[in-house]
Amino acid sequence: MDLFELTEKVNECLKGNEIFNKNDIIELKNIINNDDYIGLAQINTISGDIEYNAKKIAKYIKLAEEIKLKCIIFPQDSLLGSSIKDVIKRHTIVKKDSINWLRELAKLTKNTIAIIGDIAHINDEYINTPIVLHNGKINTDFKNQYFIYEKYAISLDTNIKNNIEFLTNNKAKLFINCASQTYKQYKKYFQNEDLSYLSSKCKIPSLYVNQIGANDNLLFEGISCAYNSNGELIARAKAFEEQLIIVEPYKSIGKIYPLPDGYCKCLKEKNEFSLDYENDLERTYKALVLGIKDYFYKCGLKRAVLGLSGGLDSSVCAVLLADALGKENVYGISMPSKITSKESKSDAEQLANNLGIHFTEVPIRNIVDTISADFHKMFNTIEKDWNYRYAQSFTQDNIQARSRATILWGVSNEFSSCIPIATSDKSEAYMGYATINGDMSGGYAPIADITKTKLFALARWINKNTGSKNLIPETIINKRPGAELAINPKTGKPLIAEDALMPYEFLDEIIWRIESKHESYYEMLISEFLYERHNNISKEQKTEWLNKFYCRMSTAFYKWSIIPPTVMIEPNSINKIDYNQLITSSHINYKGTDEEHITESLK
Amino acid sequence: MDLFELTEKVNECLKGNEIFNKNDIIELKNIINNDDYIGLAQINTISGDIEYNAKKIAKYIKLAEEIKLKCIIFPQDSLLGSSIKDVIKRHTIVKKDSINWLRELAKLTKNTIAIIGDIAHINDEYINTPIVLHNGKINTDFKNQYFIYEKYAISLDTNIKNNIEFLTNNKAKLFINCASQTYKQYKKYFQNEDLSYLSSKCKIPSLYVNQIGANDNLLFEGISCAYNSNGELIARAKAFEEQLIIVEPYKSIGKIYPLPDGYCKCLKEKNEFSLDYENDLERTYKALVLGIKDYFYKCGLKRAVLGLSGGLDSSVCAVLLADALGKENVYGISMPSKITSKESKSDAEQLANNLGIHFTEVPIRNIVDTISADFHKMFNTIEKDWNYRYAQSFTQDNIQARSRATILWGVSNEFSSCIPIATSDKSEAYMGYATINGDMSGGYAPIADITKTKLFALARWINKNTGSKNLIPETIINKRPGAELAINPKTGKPLIAEDALMPYEFLDEIIWRIESKHESYYEMLISEFLYERHNNISKEQKTEWLNKFYCRMSTAFYKWSIIPPTVMIEPNSINKIDYNQLITSSHINYKGTDEEHITESLK
Repeated sequence: MDLFELTEKVNECLKGNEIFNKNDIIELKNIINNDDYIGLAQINTISGDIEYNAKKIAKYIKLAEEIKLKCIIFPQDSLLGSSIKDVIKRHTIVKKDSINWLRELAKLTKNTIAIIGDIAHINDEYINTPIVLHNGKINTDFKNQYFIYEKYAISLDTNIKNNIEFLTNNKAKLFINCASQTYKQYKKYFQNEDLSYLSSKCKIPSLYVNQIGANDNLLFEGISCAYNSNGELIARAKAFEEQLIIVEPYKSIGKIYPLPDGYCKCLKEKNEFSLDYENDLERTYKALVLGIKDYFYKCGLKRAVLGLSGGLDSSVCAVLLADALGKENVYGISMPSKITSKESKSDAEQLANNLGIHFTEVPIRNIVDTISADFHKMFNTIEKDWNYRYAQSFTQDNIQARSRATILWGVSNEFSSCIPIATSDKSEAYMGYATINGDMSGGYAPIADITKTKLFALARWINKNTGSKNLIPETIINKRPGAELAINPKTGKPLIAEDALMPYEFLDEIIWRIESKHESYYEMLISEFLYERHNNISKEQKTEWLNKFYCRMSTAFYKWSIIPPTVMIEPNSINKIDYNQLITSSHINYKGTDEEHITESLK
Repeated sequence: MDLFELTEKVNECLKGNEIFNKNDIIELKNIINNDDYIGLAQINTISGDIEYNAKKIAKYIKLAEEIKLKCIIFPQDSLLGSSIKDVIKRHTIVKKDSINWLRELAKLTKNTIAIIGDIAHINDEYINTPIVLHNGKINTDFKNQYFIYEKYAISLDTNIKNNIEFLTNNKAKLFINCASQTYKQYKKYFQNEDLSYLSSKCKIPSLYVNQIGANDNLLFEGISCAYNSNGELIARAKAFEEQLIIVEPYKSIGKIYPLPDGYCKCLKEKNEFSLDYENDLERTYKALVLGIKDYFYKCGLKRAVLGLSGGLDSSVCAVLLADALGKENVYGISMPSKITSKESKSDAEQLANNLGIHFTEVPIRNIVDTISADFHKMFNTIEKDWNYRYAQSFTQDNIQARSRATILWGVSNEFSSCIPIATSDKSEAYMGYATINGDMSGGYAPIADITKTKLFALARWINKNTGSKNLIPETIINKRPGAELAINPKTGKPLIAEDALMPYEFLDEIIWRIESKHESYYEMLISEFLYERHNNISKEQKTEWLNKFYCRMSTAFYKWSIIPPTVMIEPNSINKIDYNQLITSSHINYKGTDEEHITESLK
């Protein structure tokens, strides 16, 4: 057995899938003996659950001592977990407690140096600070993000310029970076292979250890890595997996684990909108599944209930949930109304059968009829006092969506450890095309950060690449999406979303141009959209769609503010954590004002 | 007429309540002639609505020119509005547009110097920067938060130390601070009368101009002020009102407008929990009314519909809404279920009559019965596949709350410019004692930042101090709150919230101790609570309540994440903007861990 086979085995043991085998340990110890082997412990932690995190860290430290690693490195926030600063400021006991745990963790160290990114409380502020556990003691200067220990230059900073300066000012034989970087941050960090540049410039190996795991909306993808002193990549951990990888940076020993298909290409910036999402689909799928898995596990939840409409959104959600939670823990409910087509019902059932999840049908006709009757009376009363009753309203559509959500929350109230799933997507969030307390509502929203055209691509990828082929019935992928809440008076059939909004291909390109290119209304008007290359549309049509986009978006900010938790997997999003726009900012003029109008207005 | 009477009149004109009177202007001009009179323009702006903001600024600049003010000062973010940095980064046109408006605003200036806090884009970052409009030109160095113009030292920084350093390094005859500070920030800034200290230390007058107005959750209270070179307060604008106040800082001329009762006392830190909220009630009332008014106005909304349960929360909300929107724009709906008592219904109607708001009754029995029947069938089906059905669930309670929310959202869908109101309060948010898609749901949540004991005090204050006396029927204030969603099996009467939770007085003191004092579980256990002074409770009882608090809070974070918009009026809150705690951080051990357990755990 070589080092890599052994470390693979060690990882299985750490996961609890295999029992530690004494012979393996002895073999590993023999390989490592007397060399500078270092472990990169890419671990998944729970925010604030110090006991859970400390036990995990202890397990890794003990193993490192046993196999005589020179050093073991943990990510930033390993002990306290992510996004904890507000909490430890208010609940000071939590930080105090962590110091007691840290002291005991230090006692586990003897020959192995354990390095961890922690939080220090200095001058009423909380800053990230490196901690070294060695020989039973805690070593740190609590000064800032940098620390030198036995010629190890440890930094929590991810600014390459600062790090090079740090290395220039200090003699070091190894650069260590403990990180907790989301995809967005990781992408920025590695876009120009910055760490490789640092190593080759400073002639010193670099080790980068990142968190993995989802914490509410934040997703850390892992991919810890090591460069030798020439700046060559010598080791890399997997994405989306807890892993201990072992390297000997001075001898360029390490293993480069494969990443999801296309991952490296994804780290580059896209220059053009395209419907070819291929490079990002394996990553996206794995990220979404991990997001669900971690949210449920860390919250102590086990089961999910969702409405299966026979449409794309709920179908993709069901696939992800079945993979993340196990098919026995997912309940799909078809909730047909008068408008629901026979095909939708059978598509929903077919999908549930393909996945092997539980399935039942609960028609909502009675509920909708009862509410509608009460509404009819109530509106007539209110109309006596209030004017401006809509001639055409969405009230009837929304009763259906809200009745369905009431049913799903009912299941959640009645069965332990179960939450309902909000199935709306990002394209529709931009358009405010989702019902408050209806399909927007749920304990978790798996695909809220994904646009519709990407969802179509993901559905096709799922059918090609996951365990059983063609999980999602072709009819679901091929039909044009519609909420089936209302009849289109022109066709007599359920209203198609693209007729009410605009082609998703066009819509998603607007979103991409705003988020990635920061383009304005007029810039888009004169650019050629992908949709225009394949379809002959008039300038008026394009103008109409652009106007509709800005108009609908301006009234959608409230909806953005109540999107349930979802992992952010794109570099740009409308998630509050990533992007803050006030609901009261609904009067922004996205077209800009011509100068004559300005002069006139201020006269 | 003296300067103050004239400026009062000018303010009425600026508000549009009176027409500019040429004689008044001439009189003002005569008073001001040749002296260093300066206007502090404490204005209310709309985030991103540059045209609205620019027109307002223009109106003030024109007046200043007309009456020959030496200088007029606007708050930070006057042109672009609050919290706009993410928006202008993504929609770059908005920032570009603002520069065009600024150029035209500059053209309005001739002799008067107009000073404004703006945002500059430097090295891919957005920083606050002072701008001076004078003689038709824009003057700024775009360097940082400080700028010197004709011996005016202008700072956007609210760090007193930094400002004193700035003054020490620059010769200046006047210190100007353009701010946009929320209550929390204002409180911190003026707790030790810092600006007075700066003036007396540097022997130079200071002018502080703050925004007023609510922008989603952010509330700016105004209270701009001026100190002479001895550090004496010489002028102060009102709280919660747009106002232009005129000062001559070198001659100590200015008027100190009265603040809400107790305001200055509120700026000091409270050292002990108390049910005496008196000092904070006028401020609280005005803040809440302004919060509603601005949210509706800035979003283009006009009307509100709310459920009137005959309880405290909805009653206080109704009073606030009637004041903010006008009684004709508020619809109260009593939605009795089987459990609702006769008293609750008549109390609700009485309150509506007192307020003169619209009122109707929509019984929810039919809807609840229909849903319950469908649920019964569905649960029996699901039970065949899933174990862990709760023996006792809240399903039936929640059907009622959700049916009510569905009715209110129905009104919002059917009548233009109308949103439903979420009536839950802060004490109940801490306990997760509110229904998702039920009483938690709404387009706005007026009292989500207020604890229950403060709400009781506010209700009594309302009955004493607002227009008509005793608006809120005494029976509402005197009854013990309960959601009337379930029957207490012990009493056969609707369940009282305090029986399900703990006494609100005790609960609110826990909240206060955590938020203001950062106390831990054990610190609270050994401290004497106010409730304990008046009631004989056992150690076991206290322990049980504390345990219940932490246990319930740990599962309430999801609910915190979906609280509708509400103005934050306390220095501490659980609002996402102010306090971030991950939902997945539900396993925090708030008691800390004893060292033996730690040692044992890591063995």
